[in-house]
Amino acid sequence: MTIPTVLVLDAEPLPRLGRLTGRARVEHTDEAGLAERLPSADVLLVWDFASRAVPSAWPGEGPRPRWVHTASAGVDHLMCPELAASDTVVTNARGVFDQPIAEYVAALVLAMAKDLPRTLELQRERTWRHRESQRVAGTRACVVGSGPIGRTIARTLKALDINTALVGRTPRTGVHGPDDLDRLISRADWVIAAAPLTEQTRGMFDARRFDVMQPSARFINIGRGGLVVEQDLADALAKRWIAGAALDVFEHEPLTPYSPLWRVPGLIVSPHMSGDTVGWRDELGAQFVELYERWAAGRPLLNVVDKQRGYVPGR
Amino acid sequence: MTIPTVLVLDAEPLPRLGRLTGRARVEHTDEAGLAERLPSADVLLVWDFASRAVPSAWPGEGPRPRWVHTASAGVDHLMCPELAASDTVVTNARGVFDQPIAEYVAALVLAMAKDLPRTLELQRERTWRHRESQRVAGTRACVVGSGPIGRTIARTLKALDINTALVGRTPRTGVHGPDDLDRLISRADWVIAAAPLTEQTRGMFDARRFDVMQPSARFINIGRGGLVVEQDLADALAKRWIAGAALDVFEHEPLTPYSPLWRVPGLIVSPHMSGDTVGWRDELGAQFVELYERWAAGRPLLNVVDKQRGYVPGR
Repeated sequence: MTIPTVLVLDAEPLPRLGRLTGRARVEHTDEAGLAERLPSADVLLVWDFASRAVPSAWPGEGPRPRWVHTASAGVDHLMCPELAASDTVVTNARGVFDQPIAEYVAALVLAMAKDLPRTLELQRERTWRHRESQRVAGTRACVVGSGPIGRTIARTLKALDINTALVGRTPRTGVHGPDDLDRLISRADWVIAAAPLTEQTRGMFDARRFDVMQPSARFINIGRGGLVVEQDLADALAKRWIAGAALDVFEHEPLTPYSPLWRVPGLIVSPHMSGDTVGWRDELGAQFVELYERWAAGRPLLNVVDKQRGYVPGR
Repeated sequence: MTIPTVLVLDAEPLPRLGRLTGRARVEHTDEAGLAERLPSADVLLVWDFASRAVPSAWPGEGPRPRWVHTASAGVDHLMCPELAASDTVVTNARGVFDQPIAEYVAALVLAMAKDLPRTLELQRERTWRHRESQRVAGTRACVVGSGPIGRTIARTLKALDINTALVGRTPRTGVHGPDDLDRLISRADWVIAAAPLTEQTRGMFDARRFDVMQPSARFINIGRGGLVVEQDLADALAKRWIAGAALDVFEHEPLTPYSPLWRVPGLIVSPHMSGDTVGWRDELGAQFVELYERWAAGRPLLNVVDKQRGYVPGR
């Protein structure tokens, strides 16, 4: 019996895969070595989930891995037509980030309602200035993206008594379809982008969508930078089409110090960290080991991505 | 039939008491005029809830109002032995602040767990620095104060899947007694002060109590400044006995620009605003009008303070 080869596209710190000893030959590569190593890999673990090396290296010579797993919820960074058309199974880190991201969104919603950024500014200025803040109970949220992350966000906002609607690609019980999107965001106090980045969702939050929103609305993106036309958001904030926004993800990451986004008034910028709570890397490693055990035993994999749609189809 | 006189200890903006027209003679006073006007008042509305004028003016000559209502949850600022010993009924603004304060506490808990203050600092510095944050689900909170505010805080934290214990003066179902306090705060990730300020609670959060807490614990005070020995808190933060704190209330308010508290590392300072959401003053005015209608009709008042204990006894 041949021991399968697991090729890891590395990022620091490396995954802890000790449990695979004797059951897999674990090899490591950086972006530069990926194309050369792919033919000898049975499995590719995309540990460096910020890398765009997979779609560059995939359309090459020789055999391809039978299975690709990415340590991320989104798969936009690794898909290419050749991978989509192949027999290779793609899985993702579905589940690991749901609760942390939902809490992060709740933190932003509450911080904006309670004017916490201004409070911290005034503290720096040693200025006591009482302001009225907003009650979140009874406000309305629209969560765009009905996967596990969007659903967990919705559940968390509902627990704070926020009336929350969920929008997905396919309308079903508890989930609105795309036809309802404009109507829902036009009434929402909070619009949350939690959709996968696909051809359908790229740039969906543009000038027209910000124009539809209420002047009192706040927009939060924890999905993928490409969901938002960043310049349109900056303009919408400048024109006060909406009252505030928070971006945790960006078209180009990391933001350089020269990005104008750091200084857009009313915009909170964070470094793609919404899902990353203490222990997250260990959870991602353990999740891969569990999936590997299923795969090696010939049992069906979980978290299998629909490569045409670009996400794991949900309930 | 004589129309009762309602004397308002004023603060800007004045309460909207139009609904009392023809049913009460509404008169206004500032702090300086209070002592002189008290004998002609049937009812005193302490609209300026930051004023300490009532305990100074109360022990005077002539009749006293039969009823004193304060537009605040705490009554510490108006009690004096003579008022406590008198037949005058004291009522408070029970209920108005519960939900806003609970949301404010949730905002602070989540902001601290997600390291939001540091994110805002890094944004000012245009620095992209990913950090791991904390999951709040599964952490432990201890809410000290089992009145409506403390109970609403506990309910809100539980909705975020935080294991929350409530401590009150009298142990009962769902409420721990003072004997459990040290044990509970020694295990808590979040300690929330939401108790009334009384002889029993003054200075209860002192060096010894901060020493009992975990180095990873955060402390939040939205009750009254006097619950905390402020210097002890600053020392506890400097010595890293606890990981962070947020104060919305202070021994002396407003803080002057010279207060050292503005610059204590790890301390979030806000200007006594946790309960004050848009429309709060109208709610306070409407609540007084409702109580007045009961009183004028000879029906029993609500929110009646136990003047010996210093708060409205609860369930």
